[in-house]
Amino acid sequence: MVDLGAILLSAISLPVKPFLCKAMMTARVSLQVTMVDRGRTMIPICTVRCQKFLISCVGEDWIFLILLGLFMALLSWLVDFGIGICLQSQKWMYVNLESNVFLQYLAWVTYPVVLITFSAGFTQLLAPQAVGSGIPEIKTILRGVVLKECLTFKTFVAKVIGLTSALGSGMPLGKESPFVHIASLGAALLCKFMSLFGGIYENESRNIELLSVACAVGVSCVFAAPIGGLLFSIEAMSTFFTVRNYWRGFFAATVTAFMYRVLAVWNRDEVTITALLPTNFRQDFPFDLQELPAFAVLGIASGLGGALFVSWDQYGIYKTLHKCLLTLGLHLSDMMSLPVSPMQLTQMESLETLLDNQTWSKQGIPEEFDSNSHSQAWKHPQVNVFVTLTLFVVMKFWMSALAMTMPVPCGAFMPVFVIGAAFGRLVGESMAAWFPDGVHSDGTIYPIEPGVYAAVGAAALSGAVTHTVSTAVVVFELTGQISHILPVMIAVILANAVAQSLQPSLYDSLIMIKKLPYLPELGWGHHEKYNICVEDIMIRDVMYITLNCCYRDLHDVLLTGHLKTLALLESSESMILLGSIERAQIQALLSLQLGRPRRLKYLRDRATAEKRLSVVSHPSSEDGSTMVNQEVHFQISTEESSFSSTPTPSMKPLKPALKRPSVVDCPTEIPMPTSKSKHTQNLYYQQQWSLSLLPCLSNNCISFIFYSEREWEENQLDEQVNFDNCMIDPAPIQLVESTSLHKTHTIFSLLGLDHAYVTSIGRLIGVVSLKELQKAIEGSVAVKGVNVRPPLASFRDSGTSGTIMNNENKARDLHKLWNRRKLMSLPKEHRASDSDEKSK
Amino acid sequence: MVDLGAILLSAISLPVKPFLCKAMMTARVSLQVTMVDRGRTMIPICTVRCQKFLISCVGEDWIFLILLGLFMALLSWLVDFGIGICLQSQKWMYVNLESNVFLQYLAWVTYPVVLITFSAGFTQLLAPQAVGSGIPEIKTILRGVVLKECLTFKTFVAKVIGLTSALGSGMPLGKESPFVHIASLGAALLCKFMSLFGGIYENESRNIELLSVACAVGVSCVFAAPIGGLLFSIEAMSTFFTVRNYWRGFFAATVTAFMYRVLAVWNRDEVTITALLPTNFRQDFPFDLQELPAFAVLGIASGLGGALFVSWDQYGIYKTLHKCLLTLGLHLSDMMSLPVSPMQLTQMESLETLLDNQTWSKQGIPEEFDSNSHSQAWKHPQVNVFVTLTLFVVMKFWMSALAMTMPVPCGAFMPVFVIGAAFGRLVGESMAAWFPDGVHSDGTIYPIEPGVYAAVGAAALSGAVTHTVSTAVVVFELTGQISHILPVMIAVILANAVAQSLQPSLYDSLIMIKKLPYLPELGWGHHEKYNICVEDIMIRDVMYITLNCCYRDLHDVLLTGHLKTLALLESSESMILLGSIERAQIQALLSLQLGRPRRLKYLRDRATAEKRLSVVSHPSSEDGSTMVNQEVHFQISTEESSFSSTPTPSMKPLKPALKRPSVVDCPTEIPMPTSKSKHTQNLYYQQQWSLSLLPCLSNNCISFIFYSEREWEENQLDEQVNFDNCMIDPAPIQLVESTSLHKTHTIFSLLGLDHAYVTSIGRLIGVVSLKELQKAIEGSVAVKGVNVRPPLASFRDSGTSGTIMNNENKARDLHKLWNRRKLMSLPKEHRASDSDEKSK
Repeated sequence: MVDLGAILLSAISLPVKPFLCKAMMTARVSLQVTMVDRGRTMIPICTVRCQKFLISCVGEDWIFLILLGLFMALLSWLVDFGIGICLQSQKWMYVNLESNVFLQYLAWVTYPVVLITFSAGFTQLLAPQAVGSGIPEIKTILRGVVLKECLTFKTFVAKVIGLTSALGSGMPLGKESPFVHIASLGAALLCKFMSLFGGIYENESRNIELLSVACAVGVSCVFAAPIGGLLFSIEAMSTFFTVRNYWRGFFAATVTAFMYRVLAVWNRDEVTITALLPTNFRQDFPFDLQELPAFAVLGIASGLGGALFVSWDQYGIYKTLHKCLLTLGLHLSDMMSLPVSPMQLTQMESLETLLDNQTWSKQGIPEEFDSNSHSQAWKHPQVNVFVTLTLFVVMKFWMSALAMTMPVPCGAFMPVFVIGAAFGRLVGESMAAWFPDGVHSDGTIYPIEPGVYAAVGAAALSGAVTHTVSTAVVVFELTGQISHILPVMIAVILANAVAQSLQPSLYDSLIMIKKLPYLPELGWGHHEKYNICVEDIMIRDVMYITLNCCYRDLHDVLLTGHLKTLALLESSESMILLGSIERAQIQALLSLQLGRPRRLKYLRDRATAEKRLSVVSHPSSEDGSTMVNQEVHFQISTEESSFSSTPTPSMKPLKPALKRPSVVDCPTEIPMPTSKSKHTQNLYYQQQWSLSLLPCLSNNCISFIFYSEREWEENQLDEQVNFDNCMIDPAPIQLVESTSLHKTHTIFSLLGLDHAYVTSIGRLIGVVSLKELQKAIEGSVAVKGVNVRPPLASFRDSGTSGTIMNNENKARDLHKLWNRRKLMSLPKEHRASDSDEKSK
Repeated sequence: MVDLGAILLSAISLPVKPFLCKAMMTARVSLQVTMVDRGRTMIPICTVRCQKFLISCVGEDWIFLILLGLFMALLSWLVDFGIGICLQSQKWMYVNLESNVFLQYLAWVTYPVVLITFSAGFTQLLAPQAVGSGIPEIKTILRGVVLKECLTFKTFVAKVIGLTSALGSGMPLGKESPFVHIASLGAALLCKFMSLFGGIYENESRNIELLSVACAVGVSCVFAAPIGGLLFSIEAMSTFFTVRNYWRGFFAATVTAFMYRVLAVWNRDEVTITALLPTNFRQDFPFDLQELPAFAVLGIASGLGGALFVSWDQYGIYKTLHKCLLTLGLHLSDMMSLPVSPMQLTQMESLETLLDNQTWSKQGIPEEFDSNSHSQAWKHPQVNVFVTLTLFVVMKFWMSALAMTMPVPCGAFMPVFVIGAAFGRLVGESMAAWFPDGVHSDGTIYPIEPGVYAAVGAAALSGAVTHTVSTAVVVFELTGQISHILPVMIAVILANAVAQSLQPSLYDSLIMIKKLPYLPELGWGHHEKYNICVEDIMIRDVMYITLNCCYRDLHDVLLTGHLKTLALLESSESMILLGSIERAQIQALLSLQLGRPRRLKYLRDRATAEKRLSVVSHPSSEDGSTMVNQEVHFQISTEESSFSSTPTPSMKPLKPALKRPSVVDCPTEIPMPTSKSKHTQNLYYQQQWSLSLLPCLSNNCISFIFYSEREWEENQLDEQVNFDNCMIDPAPIQLVESTSLHKTHTIFSLLGLDHAYVTSIGRLIGVVSLKELQKAIEGSVAVKGVNVRPPLASFRDSGTSGTIMNNENKARDLHKLWNRRKLMSLPKEHRASDSDEKSK
């Protein structure tokens, strides 16, 4: 029984939600009953065990991952289904209106505009944060910044329905990036749901890990590419990746991809599970070595194209966003109704035809186009296939860049992928026209396969736009063929090199446009960054409060500075950093000191004292004064009762990070104390106070009370701060002044910091926030004296630190240490003598 | 000219090696000449610019990565070539000795033994650390621990030659893990070489990043699998991966794989670049949905097999390592000479046959074996293919596990891969025999392909042994086919799940056996780990020194404790942590205080004083005493000059981390002061000192000097410590007591820590080292009161910390803060009054 009791107790100590707790409490009570009656206890114990088992099961990661994977695959399939219906109904309308050409044309043009407008309106009304790709937001969240409103159920609904109708209009928009957002939303909601069963889902760092898994699921359920999905989500989303989290990503992505493809089999679309776009390239001789320069050129050109795409997005378009919306919609519909038929193919259809392993351009053999209806789309009686492809690339390029700016849930990955494939096909067809018998000099003829070039181009361009290398893997999984791995890798790497040296990635550029909290990457081999130290970029003028400061100091500190937290020092002489306090906490302290309850208490006390005084000085006017005082008493008590429903400021929960409670935001909640230096402000507060105190006091004593209140406030402000109700972070992250920028970047991005204090042997000497770091990385800070400093000591194995710490640092540190010792020595000796005296 | 001057100056400030610096200095001088004569300056300026350009080029990562990739690919190819020659010469010997059967048999058996013995001896003599796989060591180095001797040129040579001869013997050993070590060695040596040209290669954190790239190169140049290589190296080697480092890995691995395959093309082995082991599986219908249970079973069985392999390695074999070496060699050769012919295939040959897309087991159709000579090896007149395969799996399994224990450079990946393939083939053949017409119920017959099962089995077993999922990608790249991605992924994930729940990975188990500094992973969803806090595992009894301590305290502290660093506190009352000092530094401080120079100075002073004394007391014996004293003076000066070549202890560079200089290691270097509590030790030191001082003093004053030296030492030990020559790490990593184990693990593995101090508002309250963390993760620590604590504040965005910090913590923190304030208030008031007095 002892064992059972222990199990039960440990079960009860599990963080379960109230209703489960209740069940267990019942069980616990029944255990106590056991001591009296043994026979009846077996059933509740079994129940508790079952419950415990179920809870522990639900707490397991794999249950969560399977649920998430199945759910997202189903959703992806449903969205595909919805898009299909939308597209079919347009065609159906077109066919049924054949009698009236004008009506037919009007319907053809109006339909997409209606869908896009619905999507934009619906999203805007329900959840404006569902607009756009969503990857920038998720990237910011994974960076450690809480964007609560991005992960709500409303956003989920808006995103799913908005995406379906936007893609149903046939615009060149992508499903992939929104699905990353949708999967993250799904994971967040599932976490919330699962937390009903076990407290483990309330752990925030765990939920962020699950969120990064969700990104892999999002990519995976669009391309049915588990490995590529995981890798892409790592590259596009994270700065650091936990290998511990790896299997989760693989597992969830595999479940998703499997489910997504099985749905197709069950729906009789496929006989068995294959790749999404299976190709049929030659395997025994995938490519010739002499074709590699062509692949390299394709990669470099894709890199340039990717940079152009991002820069177009970045500079030109976003400024005229809302103006050109409707014109754009009409324009796009116009474009789509042009008789250039490949424009009317869906993205998947165009990809399918572009990855075809036929050669379209074989002059004189136009009959080679097979009976596949989609491939026929590229055939045009007047113009040859090169013109068609060039037109397609150019039109799609600017249309996608424009379509990206529409306020609907949309992504750019798929359109870019299709453009890349078309461009690759163009290069491939050119190569095939140039070398009709292949480039191989030996006897055997291996003709060039333009489809391979299409695959390479797709991977290269999408890699260049998103600054990822794993688009290569996505291509392999999408096509089901990996034999042409080297050309793809070479092109993708070259495209990345070119694009990364010219522009930030699409997602980073969106982050910058949306002004999300952002820490730029250290780019390709910018090794001068290794030579900048924290002391070159830190702010030396730190706002701080000391342990023995008075409330006036708190007040002064609140009026200046912008950081979310303030440093708490031992004293301004020693400058020893003890911890950091949030701004909101200090506001709470101040409002506790100067707030309504204490003020009223003071007034009450004063009134009592006055009453006594008045009794003594004017015994004749006894009736009137008591009446006034009684009224005051009465008013105070009603005031208190009527305001008791609103929590006092010191008790209110802290707000989420991004809401940034500041002095300006909530002047009514937290009464600002008066300050001698700000006369106008004083006036404002006096008026405010007079209004709030008006009902409780009779008119004749207001002016007196004002005078005494000023005095009281001044007295209150001069009191020493009582940090009793204050939450202090006792170990804020500290850097030393010689920590390199490189290491600082690492620490900031690893731990998701907003700022870090710079200390020297316990003394605060500066602060570095995300802003300074950002500036330093973007190079807008003029660094004084770039000389090589070793990466510091404190964040490395300390065994090696001594060898690399140079003499300059050593001298500096010691100098500071000795300065400090000098400061400390005086009181210390006194203390010693003091204790000596005591002992005597 | 101003611009040019600035460029020059910045060029000179670059950290270049002396000879380059000299060149620039010349240029600088010539610039000053310019002021006088303009015409002649253009040439040196151009030279400097060219030099600068070259240096910056060499500093670029891509140059390094290309060099590394090319070099390793060439090396891998050469090793393959060497192995081929070794194997061929054995066959040649066998054929040429056909006349004498006994000699033939003897040669066949002796040859591998000779090669293995040579490999073992050569490695042992040149560099014993080259023995074994090398992945555990690299993993430890990437974890942040410096194992200098593992990355030397000697190790490189020993590893390459040892590996070639070991594999040349035909033993079931792998080339993959040693090549990871070789690539790391190559990268380290290349870094060293490149640092001749630019200081950037001296940055240690950068070199560690390059080392992790080298691991990817190592895998890539064995399998020609760039993506799989990178992913495998991440999974097997790192805990956290920097996405910033991603492109480097991809780039270098692609260069390597490309070069490796191009060498084969140039050598006329291949027509063009293809996969290493191209397969020819059916693509339009890769597998049936109903085959998935079989793949799942294969995965689970592989997981069990993998766990068995690791546990066998772990418990049984390593104890009898050196005893069974020779017997083993003979035994293995015996095994190889058995007439079971598939055992005589090389690993690549067996893989090639196992991945064949024929079905071997079609009963009654043994003629289906094609003319490929390797496939014929599996055909046996008496026994059927199932028996052959089973025998092969069982024999190879125990032979590989045994072979792993030989003291030669070897890996286990390839043998395990082959065993997995054979096991998969066995399952596949069984399936094919069971369902001869395929499992599909529709009209079309899709026969089962046992080759797919072989691929799945290979990925699953190697994944289970190494606890990685990316073996799946390696299989795709090795076979050049990805259409069967889902079965492979499912089997690999299941195998991992089973193996990880039973055993640590092969590399982790080797790390444990070799007792390398090790931090175990947090396993699959052990979420109870989220509920343990630092205060449950920390050591509260921390060794520390204070700013005002005396040398005796240093001495006492050195005699106890085991951590490499000691905490430096402000005082033992305030307990405020100021920084940490290395043990070696404290030893240096002590030896500076009690060392030879000061001691001799003391003796000299004393002798001078004595001389005066003797002159005063015994003016008659003037001649004799001056002679003795002069002799002492002379001896002292020669002593000093003869010892000046050895650096004084305080000046000597710090040792690398793993050498752990301790008191016991170097008693002769650092004189231990005498302590009253250790009488025997005193005696020892007295003797030591008497020996070292003997030559410089005449016999009659030794006993007197001993007495005075004891006194002198005691005086010296009572002096306050002068931290002048001491290097202090001013910002050691601090945790708070409610940091969760999960977060602590993250921080330790992210920053590669050895220990971290636990502080509460500046006060030191405990320390956590790797050891405690290790114990806690392995579950050997009984945690008191597992209740959910929130992941703390300090390492997260502080904006959210307030909301999750519960009241208990709050109260505790404040309690401590107030305790501290009470402590501080006494001297503070004194100080205030003190300054008041001063101002008066």
